[in-house]
Amino acid sequence: MKRLLITGAAGNLGKILREGLKGYADVLRLSDIAPMDPAGPGEEVVPCDLSDRSAVHELTKDCDGIIHLGGISVEAAFDDLLQANFLGTYNLYEGARKNGKPRILFASSNHAIGFHKRTTKLDDKSELRPDSLYGVTKCYGEALASYYFDKFDVETVSLRIGSCFEKPRDRRMLSTWMSPRDFISLMKAVFDAPMTGHLVMYGVSNNRTKWWSNDHAELIGWQPLDSSEIFRAEIEAAFPVEDRHDPAVIYQGGGFAAKGHFED
Amino acid sequence: MKRLLITGAAGNLGKILREGLKGYADVLRLSDIAPMDPAGPGEEVVPCDLSDRSAVHELTKDCDGIIHLGGISVEAAFDDLLQANFLGTYNLYEGARKNGKPRILFASSNHAIGFHKRTTKLDDKSELRPDSLYGVTKCYGEALASYYFDKFDVETVSLRIGSCFEKPRDRRMLSTWMSPRDFISLMKAVFDAPMTGHLVMYGVSNNRTKWWSNDHAELIGWQPLDSSEIFRAEIEAAFPVEDRHDPAVIYQGGGFAAKGHFED
Amino acid sequence: MKRLLITGAAGNLGKILREGLKGYADVLRLSDIAPMDPAGPGEEVVPCDLSDRSAVHELTKDCDGIIHLGGISVEAAFDDLLQANFLGTYNLYEGARKNGKPRILFASSNHAIGFHKRTTKLDDKSELRPDSLYGVTKCYGEALASYYFDKFDVETVSLRIGSCFEKPRDRRMLSTWMSPRDFISLMKAVFDAPMTGHLVMYGVSNNRTKWWSNDHAELIGWQPLDSSEIFRAEIEAAFPVEDRHDPAVIYQGGGFAAKGHFED
Amino acid sequence: MKRLLITGAAGNLGKILREGLKGYADVLRLSDIAPMDPAGPGEEVVPCDLSDRSAVHELTKDCDGIIHLGGISVEAAFDDLLQANFLGTYNLYEGARKNGKPRILFASSNHAIGFHKRTTKLDDKSELRPDSLYGVTKCYGEALASYYFDKFDVETVSLRIGSCFEKPRDRRMLSTWMSPRDFISLMKAVFDAPMTGHLVMYGVSNNRTKWWSNDHAELIGWQPLDSSEIFRAEIEAAFPVEDRHDPAVIYQGGGFAAKGHFED
Amino acid sequence: MKRLLITGAAGNLGKILREGLKGYADVLRLSDIAPMDPAGPGEEVVPCDLSDRSAVHELTKDCDGIIHLGGISVEAAFDDLLQANFLGTYNLYEGARKNGKPRILFASSNHAIGFHKRTTKLDDKSELRPDSLYGVTKCYGEALASYYFDKFDVETVSLRIGSCFEKPRDRRMLSTWMSPRDFISLMKAVFDAPMTGHLVMYGVSNNRTKWWSNDHAELIGWQPLDSSEIFRAEIEAAFPVEDRHDPAVIYQGGGFAAKGHFED
Amino acid sequence: MKRLLITGAAGNLGKILREGLKGYADVLRLSDIAPMDPAGPGEEVVPCDLSDRSAVHELTKDCDGIIHLGGISVEAAFDDLLQANFLGTYNLYEGARKNGKPRILFASSNHAIGFHKRTTKLDDKSELRPDSLYGVTKCYGEALASYYFDKFDVETVSLRIGSCFEKPRDRRMLSTWMSPRDFISLMKAVFDAPMTGHLVMYGVSNNRTKWWSNDHAELIGWQPLDSSEIFRAEIEAAFPVEDRHDPAVIYQGGGFAAKGHFED
Repeated sequence: MKRLLITGAAGNLGKILREGLKGYADVLRLSDIAPMDPAGPGEEVVPCDLSDRSAVHELTKDCDGIIHLGGISVEAAFDDLLQANFLGTYNLYEGARKNGKPRILFASSNHAIGFHKRTTKLDDKSELRPDSLYGVTKCYGEALASYYFDKFDVETVSLRIGSCFEKPRDRRMLSTWMSPRDFISLMKAVFDAPMTGHLVMYGVSNNRTKWWSNDHAELIGWQPLDSSEIFRAEIEAAFPVEDRHDPAVIYQGGGFAAKGHFED
Repeated sequence: MKRLLITGAAGNLGKILREGLKGYADVLRLSDIAPMDPAGPGEEVVPCDLSDRSAVHELTKDCDGIIHLGGISVEAAFDDLLQANFLGTYNLYEGARKNGKPRILFASSNHAIGFHKRTTKLDDKSELRPDSLYGVTKCYGEALASYYFDKFDVETVSLRIGSCFEKPRDRRMLSTWMSPRDFISLMKAVFDAPMTGHLVMYGVSNNRTKWWSNDHAELIGWQPLDSSEIFRAEIEAAFPVEDRHDPAVIYQGGGFAAKGHFED
Repeated sequence: MKRLLITGAAGNLGKILREGLKGYADVLRLSDIAPMDPAGPGEEVVPCDLSDRSAVHELTKDCDGIIHLGGISVEAAFDDLLQANFLGTYNLYEGARKNGKPRILFASSNHAIGFHKRTTKLDDKSELRPDSLYGVTKCYGEALASYYFDKFDVETVSLRIGSCFEKPRDRRMLSTWMSPRDFISLMKAVFDAPMTGHLVMYGVSNNRTKWWSNDHAELIGWQPLDSSEIFRAEIEAAFPVEDRHDPAVIYQGGGFAAKGHFED
Repeated sequence: MKRLLITGAAGNLGKILREGLKGYADVLRLSDIAPMDPAGPGEEVVPCDLSDRSAVHELTKDCDGIIHLGGISVEAAFDDLLQANFLGTYNLYEGARKNGKPRILFASSNHAIGFHKRTTKLDDKSELRPDSLYGVTKCYGEALASYYFDKFDVETVSLRIGSCFEKPRDRRMLSTWMSPRDFISLMKAVFDAPMTGHLVMYGVSNNRTKWWSNDHAELIGWQPLDSSEIFRAEIEAAFPVEDRHDPAVIYQGGGFAAKGHFED
Repeated sequence: MKRLLITGAAGNLGKILREGLKGYADVLRLSDIAPMDPAGPGEEVVPCDLSDRSAVHELTKDCDGIIHLGGISVEAAFDDLLQANFLGTYNLYEGARKNGKPRILFASSNHAIGFHKRTTKLDDKSELRPDSLYGVTKCYGEALASYYFDKFDVETVSLRIGSCFEKPRDRRMLSTWMSPRDFISLMKAVFDAPMTGHLVMYGVSNNRTKWWSNDHAELIGWQPLDSSEIFRAEIEAAFPVEDRHDPAVIYQGGGFAAKGHFED
Repeated sequence: MKRLLITGAAGNLGKILREGLKGYADVLRLSDIAPMDPAGPGEEVVPCDLSDRSAVHELTKDCDGIIHLGGISVEAAFDDLLQANFLGTYNLYEGARKNGKPRILFASSNHAIGFHKRTTKLDDKSELRPDSLYGVTKCYGEALASYYFDKFDVETVSLRIGSCFEKPRDRRMLSTWMSPRDFISLMKAVFDAPMTGHLVMYGVSNNRTKWWSNDHAELIGWQPLDSSEIFRAEIEAAFPVEDRHDPAVIYQGGGFAAKGHFED
C-alpha cells in the first residue's frame, strides 16, 4: 500500500495507529483539525476541517485506503455533530468517490447498538439501537457506507469499536475493551482483505465476556489475541461493584445510555 | 385527539391528510415552509422552517400527535438535506421531547431499503440498504426515532412509504402503491393504537405483488383495503415492458437506485 | 368420533363446547368438579376431581378424543394450582396413556406468553414468558404434552387461548378475542386432522389487530371467520382509553401481567 | 409474448396449459415424446426426445419463454430418469442458453421436500428432503436452474407443484391440490413478471390446510383463487380416514414417501 | 458475598460445591433433607424439607445468592416430584422474593431438551423437549424463573446441566460431561456477573463433541477449561460401541429418553 | 472397523487416505477406474467402473464404511458427469443399500455453494448455489444421500471439501485449505461417531479466514488442528494480489465460478 489516510489522527485512536501502522504503507497521511506532531519519515501531516468539502477533496487524493476516525467521538451538541459527523463523513465519502474509490475503514461505535441490554448477544444483523446522538451519527455513517458501496462501489468496513485504550478504564470495559495491538492487526486485516464490500463488524479483543458475535471479522481473517482478563483484578479493586439497576450497567452502551440529553 | 400537527402539509402527502383527517382531531395544525391554503374550520396554519429550532419548538407545543412529513422528499443536494432532513428532524424530535412527548409518525421511505432486489421479500428486520442520499436521511430518521424512544419515551411509527398518489404512475408503482384512503386509515390506526414504542412498518396497499411483510402494521390493526390491480391495464398500456437488466427494475428503489450522484 | 371427553365442562368454555359440539361425536362425556346440568341425549355427565388419579383413570376410558379444559383457569394460590393444574393434568395424561391414547386438546393460555409486549409479534416458537402462576401451569402443561407425545405417542394440540366469550369485555380483548363459533370450528379442525403430533397454536379470531402468527393452525386447516371489529364501537364507548404506561396495557397478558402476587 | 414452448405437452399438465394458455402467446410450441393432437391455430407441434441434444437445440430456438414439464413425472427406474430428467433437463437448459436465454418455468415437485412431516410448515428456504428418486431429479433440476442463472443469466421459476388435477383424488390432495385455473394464472404471472432471477415457489391453490408459505409467489403477484374445500365432502365420503401411523400420512410426499425402492 | 445458600447440599453436586466454593462467600449455608456433615468454618448447616413453606422461608433469609440444587434429580414418581420439585421450587422462589431477592442459580437439566436428537445442534432458544417427568419439572422451573424475573425482578440463571462427575461414566458423557472444576468456576461467573436477568445456559465442559451453543455463558464470561477427551480411551475400553438404533443413543437425553414410564 | 471401502483411491484425496488410514480398519478396500499401486498389507485393490452397476454391487459387499471419493472431481462435459457422478453415485448408494447399509462419507464440494460471495458467512443451512456442472453433481449427491437416509436408513456425511493438498496452491486456498492431517482425522471422526443420520459439513482446516460455520462437524467431535497461516508468506510472495472485481475473487468457488461453459 502506497498511501493510507488516517483522519482524526490527533485523537487517542489516531495516535495508536500512527505508531502502530508505521511502515504498513509507504506513506501515512495524517489529518486532523487539532494540532498534530510534525511529520516523521513516511508521514504526511495534513491539517483539515472535515466540514470543508474542497479541503477534504484535496485530502483524499492519491490514497489507497482511508481510516476514518475523524469527527466527534463523544456525545455532543447536535449542531456540532451536524458539521463534524454528518457533513464531515459525507465529505469524506465524496472525496473517496471522486478520488479513485479507496477502501474505507469507518470508525463506527458500540453506541450504535448501545441500548441493547448486556444480557443480549448481538451479531452484525442485530437491530440498531443507538444510545446517544453520537450513536445516531454512527448509524448514519453505516447507512452512508452501505449506499456508497451499493451505488458507487466504494468499499467500507464499518467497525463498531468497543473501548480502545491501553487498558480498560472501568468494569464495563472488561467486556468492551479492544487492545491497541488488536486494533492495529485489525486495520491490517481490513486493508489486506481481497474484498470487503460493506461489512459491519465489532472491534473488541478476545475478552472473557462476549456480547458480540463477530462473523464478519472472521471473514477477513481477524483474530484478536489480547484479553482484558489480565486487568481484571486491578479494575475490580479500583471500581465498585456494578449496580444492576443502574442504566449504565443494564445497557451495553454504559454511561452513554444512562445519561440524559446533552444540552439539558 | 385535540391537536394533531402535520409537517410538510403543503406537499402531496400533506394535502391528502389535510383533507382525509378532517375531523379526526379537534384541530389540525398544518405546517410547511411552502405556501399553504388558509386555515379552514378546525385548522391552524403555521408556516415554519424546520431548520429553525426555536420556531419548531413553538410549532410542537400543545400537540397530541405529530405526522412528520416535512423536509425534502426526493433526492437532493446533501447540503439541502442537511438542513431540511437531518437538522429538521432533530429539531422536531427535540420539540416533541420538550413539549409533552406526543407520538410521532415519521415518514420514512422505501428508499431506506431500496437497494434490495425485487426478488427479495423484506420485513421490518431486513438490512437497511438506502438507494440515495435521501434514503440515507430516512435511515438516520429511523435511528433517531429509536433513540428518542429508548431514552426519552417518545413513541414513533417509522413508516416506509411506498408510492402514495391517486393512482400508480408507472409499472413499478403497481407494487409500491399506497392509496390515499389506505394512507388515511393507517394514520388513524397509528394514533388510535394504545402503544407503539418504536415500530418500523411499510406503507403499501393490498396490491397483488407483495415485496414487504408487514407484521408491525398488523400489530396496530391496520388493514389496507385498496389494490393497484384496478389500474393495471391502464398502466401497462401506458408504459413499456420493463427491462430486467435496468437497475430501475432490478432494485426495489426503482429510479432512485438507478440514478447516479445528484450533483454530478 | 364415538366418544369425546370434555373436562371442565361446567365452565364458560365447557358450556360453549357442550352446546357447540352437540352431534360432533356420538357421545359427549362431560366432566367437572362443579355441578353440571343433567345429561341430555348423546351426553354422559361424569363428575370428577382431576386430582383423584383413579377417578381420572375411569373418566378417560373409551374416549376417542379429550378436550382438557379442566383445572383452575385464573390466577390462584399455588397450592390450589398444584392440585388442579399440575396434578390434575398429569392424571389426565396418565389416563389417556393407559386408555388407548386418544388425541388431547390442551387448553393452554396466552398467559404462558403474557410478558411479551404488545409491540412484539409472536409465533409458535416464541420464548415462553408466563405472566402469572396460572401461566406457569400452562407452560408446564405444554411441556408435559411434548413429553407424552415424544415418549408415548399421545398427540396434543396445545391451544393458547386468547379470550373466549360471547363478545370482548374490554379493549384488550379486541385483540385477543376468540368467538365461540371459531372456538367450536377449531375443536373440529383439531380432531378431524389426520395427525397433529404435538402442535402449539393460538386460539384467536380473525381480529383486526394481530399479535400472533398461527402457522400451526393453518397446518390443520383452521380458519377463524369472526372478528372483534363489530364490537369495537361498543367497547370503546364503554371503556376508557388505555394508558400506555400501565403494565396491563404494555404486556400481552393484560391484567394478569400487571397484578402482583396472588396471596400478598 | 411471441412464442412459448411447452415441453411434456402430451401429459396431464401439458394438456391443461395447451388449453388454458391459448392466446397468451402468438404461438404455443408444443413438444413431447408421446403423441400429441395436431396443431391448431396459434400452435406448433414438435415431437422431441429430450435426451437428444441436437433435437432439443432446435426445439428451443426462437422462444420467448419455456415451460418445462417434460421428462418422467412419477417414480421410475433410475436409468430412465437419467435420460429423461437428468440429461433431458440439461439439454433443455443448454438449448435455452444458446438460443437467447428465454425465462424457464421448471416443473419441480413437492416430492423434492416430501420427507418433511405434515406437521411442519415449510417455506422456500426449507431443507430439501426428497422422497423418491423422482424427487431427487427435482432437487437436481433446481440446482441446475440456480447455476444457469448465477452463471449465464438464464432465469427460472422452480415451481414445486402439489397435485394439479380437475379435482383432488384423495384426502391428501385436499392439502396439495392446485386447480387448473390457478395453474394457468400462475404461468401468466411467471412470464409477466418483470424479473424473477431464480425463484423457488410452491404450486398450490388456496386450500384450507396450508403446509407451505409462498413468499416468492407473492413477489411475482400470484394469487390462487380456488380451494379444494368444495370437494371435501365428496373426497371424505370416498376415501377412508387416514391412519396417522401410515408413512403416506405422516410425510408431505404421501405415497411417494411411503413406498420402497422402485425396482425391488 | 456474605452468605450463599446451597440447597441439595448433601447430593453429588452439592458436595462438589461445598468443597469448591469454600471461601467464595463469608458463609455457605448448606441445606438438604438428607444428612449432611457438620458445619465447618464458614459454614452453616440447615436441614430443610423444601416442601415446607415456612421452613424454606426461614432458610432463605439473609442470603446474597442461592444455588438451588435441591429436589429430586432423577426420574421419579410424579407424586414425589410434585412435592420436591414443583412445590419445593415454588417455595424457594417465594422465599427469595420475600427475603431480599437474591440471585438464584436454578439447576435445570439437559433432560429439559433430551428428546432432541444427537444430530441436532441446540442453543438457548431451542424448543423444549423434555425426556422424562423429571425433565418436565425442569421446564416448569425455567418457566417459574422467567415469571419471577419478569414480575418480581428476581434474577435466575437456569443452567441445563449435562453430567457433572469426577469423570464421564459412559460414552454419552464424553459429550455431556462438565468437570467439577468447570462447574465451580461457572458458579462464580454467575454470581460475579453484574446482571443476569433470566438467562438459560448449558453446563458442559469444553468437550470435543459439542451439542450445545452457549451464547449466554459467554455473556457472563464463563469459559470451561476441561475436556472429557482425556478420559476417552478409558471410557471406550470400558463400554461397548453404541448402537445407533438404540433410543438412548439417538436422543440427547440418553437413558432418560429411552426408558418407559417410571411406575409401569 | 473391519473393512472400509475407498472409491476414487487413485486420486489425490484417495492417496492421502490410503496412507493416512492405514491400520484404521482391518482392511482398506481401494477402488478406482484408474491404475492403483498393488495392494499392500491390510489392503484390497479392486478396480471398478462406477457406472457399472453390478460391478459396484460386488465392490460394496462386506464393507463397514464407505468413503466415496470416486467420480469426476473437476468441471467436465455433462455426458461424462452423467456416467461418473450421477450414475456412479446412484450405483454406489444402491450397492450400500443392498449390502448391509454401511455409513457413507460422500465427498461433496465447496462448489455446491460456490456462487456465494466471499463476504457471506455460510453454514450447513445456506442455500445451494452451485458454481459449475460439477457443483451441480454435488448438490445431486447430497439430495440422494438425504433420500437414502430418510427412506432406507443409510447414513451419510456430505462433506463439502474446500481444497485438500499438502499446502495451499494460491491465495484463495488460504481460506479453503484442509490439511491432509485434518482430512484424515475427520474421516475417523465420521466413522467413530455413534450416529450421523445425514449431516452436511465443511471440510476445512482451522484457517485464519473463516467462510463457513461448521456446527455439524462439532456434533461429531471433529476439531481441525492445522492452519494455512504458516504458508501465507510463501503464497503471497508467489501469487499477485487478488483483484476484487474478478469473479474468481468475488465468489467462494473461485475459478470454478469464474469460468464459462466447459464445452464452449
